[in-house]
Parts: sequence; C-alpha cells; structure tokens
Amino acid sequence: MKIPFDGEKLNALMEAAGADLLLATSKDNVQYLLGGYRFFFFAHRDAIGVSRYLPLLGYPRGAPEKAFYIGNGMERWHQEVEPLWTPEIANVQWSCDQAGREAAGFIRKRGLAKGRVAVEKSFLPADALDALREELPGAQFIEAGPILDALRAVKRPEELALLKEASEDIIGSMMTVMTATAPGTTTREIAHRMHHEEVGRGLDFEYCLTAAGPSFNRAPSEARWEKGRALSLDSGGNKRGYIGDLARMAVMGPPTDLMKEVLGEIRAVQAAARSVLRAGALGREVYAAALAEQEKCPHKGEMVFLAHGMGMIQHEAPHLTGSGIVPYPGTYENRALESGMVLSVETDMRNEEVGFVKLEDTIVVQDEGWEAYGDEGRDWVVAEG
Amino acid sequence: MKIPFDGEKLNALMEAAGADLLLATSKDNVQYLLGGYRFFFFAHRDAIGVSRYLPLLGYPRGAPEKAFYIGNGMERWHQEVEPLWTPEIANVQWSCDQAGREAAGFIRKRGLAKGRVAVEKSFLPADALDALREELPGAQFIEAGPILDALRAVKRPEELALLKEASEDIIGSMMTVMTATAPGTTTREIAHRMHHEEVGRGLDFEYCLTAAGPSFNRAPSEARWEKGRALSLDSGGNKRGYIGDLARMAVMGPPTDLMKEVLGEIRAVQAAARSVLRAGALGREVYAAALAEQEKCPHKGEMVFLAHGMGMIQHEAPHLTGSGIVPYPGTYENRALESGMVLSVETDMRNEEVGFVKLEDTIVVQDEGWEAYGDEGRDWVVAEG
Repeated sequence: MKIPFDGEKLNALMEAAGADLLLATSKDNVQYLLGGYRFFFFAHRDAIGVSRYLPLLGYPRGAPEKAFYIGNGMERWHQEVEPLWTPEIANVQWSCDQAGREAAGFIRKRGLAKGRVAVEKSFLPADALDALREELPGAQFIEAGPILDALRAVKRPEELALLKEASEDIIGSMMTVMTATAPGTTTREIAHRMHHEEVGRGLDFEYCLTAAGPSFNRAPSEARWEKGRALSLDSGGNKRGYIGDLARMAVMGPPTDLMKEVLGEIRAVQAAARSVLRAGALGREVYAAALAEQEKCPHKGEMVFLAHGMGMIQHEAPHLTGSGIVPYPGTYENRALESGMVLSVETDMRNEEVGFVKLEDTIVVQDEGWEAYGDEGRDWVVAEG
Repeated sequence: MKIPFDGEKLNALMEAAGADLLLATSKDNVQYLLGGYRFFFFAHRDAIGVSRYLPLLGYPRGAPEKAFYIGNGMERWHQEVEPLWTPEIANVQWSCDQAGREAAGFIRKRGLAKGRVAVEKSFLPADALDALREELPGAQFIEAGPILDALRAVKRPEELALLKEASEDIIGSMMTVMTATAPGTTTREIAHRMHHEEVGRGLDFEYCLTAAGPSFNRAPSEARWEKGRALSLDSGGNKRGYIGDLARMAVMGPPTDLMKEVLGEIRAVQAAARSVLRAGALGREVYAAALAEQEKCPHKGEMVFLAHGMGMIQHEAPHLTGSGIVPYPGTYENRALESGMVLSVETDMRNEEVGFVKLEDTIVVQDEGWEAYGDEGRDWVVAEG
C-alpha cells in the first residue's frame, strides 16, 4: 500500500515506544501523515461553535490498510480535490467529545480496545481524551510526540524544496520592506507590510518580530524606525506547512563602524557553526564551534547563540542541546546529524548603542557539508530613506 | 478594580454554573478577558518545540484582584507595549504539562485547591488537564465553554466597530477580486487573491470558500471561472479577533434570467429573516420567518437557510436553533435576542444549471430593528472579463 511517509521508520518508532496505534491530532502531524493535505477551512483557526476543529488520523502499527481519518463535516469538498490515502474516512466531526468517541469506535473495530494508543497529549483536547478513556477503559494512552518528531526529522526532497521556497520568500519580503520603507514608519506598520509581502508570495504569515534600535523590544508597536537607526526583522511564514524563519538587519542610511563591527562578529559565529556542519557531526559540535568563536568576539557578553531543528515546527528534531533558552531535551547532543536534516542557526546581540542585532539562517545538512536557503542580505541592508 | 469585561455578568454566570474559578485557555476567550491582547508571536500558530503555546487566564469568582495570567517565556515584550490588567503575571510557559502545574500553583495559593474550576475542555490540552488533576486531586473540573459563550453574547460598541470594519473589508476585498479577475482564473488563485486583499486591508485571513458554477464544490482548486459562469465567494477574516464572514455572487459577463431569479429568491429569504429582527425577538422567530418565505420560492427545494450568532467565533451565542446543520444546542430558540447581539444570516442554493449560489450577511440586533454591516454587492456583481 502506497503511503506518503516512511512506514517502516514509523513502525520501528512505534515498536520502540510500545505503541499499537498512533492517533495524530495536531494539524502539522496530520498533514505530514496525509502527505500534504490540511483542510483549508480550518488551516488558520480552530474554534467553531461550542467546540473546535479536530482532525484525527489513526495508524495501527504495521497496518496502513487499517488506517482511518476523522474530519470535519465540511471536508468532503476538499477531499474531492485532494484525495486521501487512508482507506476509511469519516467526515463527521463537530466537537472534541464526539471526535474522541468516533476514534474509540475505530480503535475498537481494529481489536485494539486494550491496546497502547499513542496520542499527542498537547494537541488532543482534554474532552477528547476523556471520551477516549471512557470508551476504551482497557486502553493505555502514551505520548506520541517524540515518535512523530523523530519520524519527521529527515526531510524528503519535496519538503526541502518547500523549505527553500519559504526561506527565499521570507528574504524577498524583507528586502522589499527594508528598502521601501520611509523614515519614521512604525514597527507595527513594518510588520504589517511583511505580512502583506509574504502573503503576496504565497506564504502563510506567522509572525514578524521587529526592533527599531536602540530599543531591544521586538514586539510590533508605535516605535518608529528613524534615520541612522538599525532595524531587525525576524519573521516566520510557511509554504504549505513548511516554515521559512530568518532574521536580517537594515539601517536607515549608512551603517556606523560599530554597526559593521557587531554584525561582523555575528557573521563570524554563524560561520563557525556552519564550518562543522555535515552528516555525522554531533549536535554538541555545532554549539562548541559557535561558542568558541563567540569567546573571541569583543562583544561576546552581549551575544546569544542558538541552533535547533526546523521544518513544519520551530524547534523540532534534531534538538541539538538541552541547554538552550527553550527547555527541550537535547536528543541530538551526542548523536550524529543526518543528511536532509534542517537547522535554524541564530545569533543575536543586545548592544546598548545599536539595539537588537541578529542573523538567523536556515541550513540543510548534507553528506559533504551544508546548503543555506535564502542566504542573502546578511550584511547591513541600507535603506535610503 | 477596572476590568475590560462585565465582571458582574461573569460572576453571575460562574455562580449559576457553580464555578469558583474560571481558567480560560482558548486564544479567543483569553483575548476577550484581557481586553484585546493576543500574543502576536503565536497569533497564527500553536506548535513550538515538543509542545505548544498555551496562554492561561485565571479568574476567581468575584475577585479580579486575585486574577492571574500565565504566558509564554517570550511575552514580556508584547506586554511592555500593551500592559495587562491581571495583578499577577508569569511569563514562563513552554509546555502544556508545565502550564497545568503553574496554574495549579496559582489556584492552590488562592485557597481553591478543593474548589470547582471551570476549564475550556476543548481548548485545554489533555496533558495540561492531567497535570491540573494530579496537582489538585481535590478539585472538580467543570466546563467553562457555556459561561464564556454567554459572557460574550452581547457586543460592546468597540466590538461592534471591529465587526463592522471586518465586514466592510471582506466586502471590499470581494468587490476588488470579483471585478478584476480574468476569465479562466482558477478558484485557487481567486482564493489567494482574497487572502492578499484581506491582509492588505488589515485583516487576518481565515478562509475563502469558492465555487465556480455549475460545480457545487467550494474548495479552492484548479477549477476555472469561465465566461458566462457564476462565482460564489464566502470568506472569513478577522480584525483583531473579530470576524468578518460574508458571501457574495459574481458572474463573468451578464447574468442570465435564471441567475437573477434564484438570487432574488435568496434575497427574499434573507429579507424575511431581517424583517422580524429586533431586541425581544425569539431565536425561532427568525427561522420561522425565513422558512415561511423559502416555502414560497420556486427553488425552495434547493435552498438551505441558516442563522447563528457570531463575533470572535463562528456560531457563537446567540444559538438560534438546535436543528441546524451544525449540531449545537439552540439556547436562544425560545429566548429573546438582545440589542448588541450579532447574527450571521445565510441562505444558499444548489442549482444544477447556475451552481452554488449564496448570500451571507452580518446583522447586529438593535432595540428597534437591526443594522447590516458590509451590506453591499448583494446583487450579481458583473465581471467584464
């Protein structure tokens, strides 16, 4: 049976976790398991009526022919346009309690009423799990998150193509907004222009962090980008679920010597991280190389380095370290990176005079090294004003 | 203490439900209780790392001075720009399990470890509720959804202003897209243009249903809008959380007599619903008036009428009937509508020759009648091609 993901890998991950059936309920993982399908009506929102949208995909270990999908009552139209591979489909969902009971019915019919069911507990509403527990009192519910995170870690060529497109579209949007903005424009307006530019390029906008120097505050606000000041943009948007997330710097007029110096230091740290990247490198080696370079920088005390896997989700596998600002287990700290894994590599600096300075790059691990997506505009982008 | 919602109403609703503390966790309700604040970074997505974003607002009945807010580790920037009213704030959240434990700590400190805690079970991830149950074994967890739905039912003037703006921006986007589209354009491209237009007007896009006649399929696809054919657009987008959601019809070239006839029937059903609308009307009276008019229509068998409350959520209070296609309890079936409630009133038709035909209007209930927002373009919008 043709399925759009690595079924053998999923079976092995489920076996290692002791899972008889996987029940995916997050939009990202459901899309992944369906090979790209995400119901368009609820792609941007969840709430409807007295409950919410909740797609559920059930996959019994080793038996894709017994997989099922539970969708919303309106999904048939979309599935006519984009057919699903799952042999059984029930487009009936309007509440989470009901969704849990429907899923329990499918699980029972597959003889797994007393099985171990892996669920995404952070993406399975409490009433849906309560319904599952009530309907399947003999079942055990274990955590599916790490299984799916590991399944998605190595990207297929079509996933890499989307990540590349998304990255290039983010950079294209930034270059347009940075060079076409007049002095005195608010960061709120700049973030709005990024949103509009990204959508124009076919991205779904996620966020735009903006800081107009010398402030370090990156929330879009009434703060204005004035002549002589730095602007940092850090924006995320996705192309059919795959994230572009990069950060670049602009200045309204010529950069000062200090500006050139600090961005040079950041580029050096980023370059050091890249220098060790290739299949086989360990997660901690990326950090070690970057932190050794940071140690040499005159502004080392103002800098923070961070690198993490990315793809459909920010901070997904490979998790390079457990010591970052985001408290995730560093499962790849001492484990070899593989070709096709994608990293977000970021260095920022809080400089009292310049403000918030940051580069964030998207880098795919390859057998002999790496490739950076959207790797433009890494020096000061000069706005004429 | 100054709070941005009707505290007396909330206290009364909580008392009636037997709730000692309300723990809101859906983005819409948290925004409502915070008076408009929605953390920008996670406004469009939830997933990050091995878990997800989850804001939590706790409100002990009658004691706003003991309210608390638990936000993500990155929220401080946004709160500097837009301060929160809640006396205690902890910007610490990175996983749902942790969020549940933090909330339990706040609840315990307020002496409510054995209290009745109202939670939004469809918007509280299972691991967060499991953590709350483990930390507070003596507490009872009841459903908060109806409390919050009722709290939001009557809109304040500033909410109505946003709903009006959102409605007008949806209609403005539709008129632009309908009249500027060339024959043979795909519905996928048309939906994308709606997205771009809405964002240009400051909306957050949610969805665009599109059908190019004579097909009834409203999923954006490679189907093309050809000369002589009808196009239905039904799009939702929100302005700072408040939804615009309307449907209009266009035709590529002059409409046929049949087209004029069927849209006239739909307008007549919509007008009948409006005719009874005022504060004091019962939910079922709206349906009765519309269905009586439908009964007179030559194409009555192809038509479906639907009316429901709207605001931050599609199908929110007032729920006019329990018999609609969406299975929600009709709490306002025999209950008087109030001034400031907002309805979405929709009539659609599946006509074999014309295709999918629909009008959807947004109507605010007033003491002496009603006002429709974005009430333009309700006849065939003619594209020159």
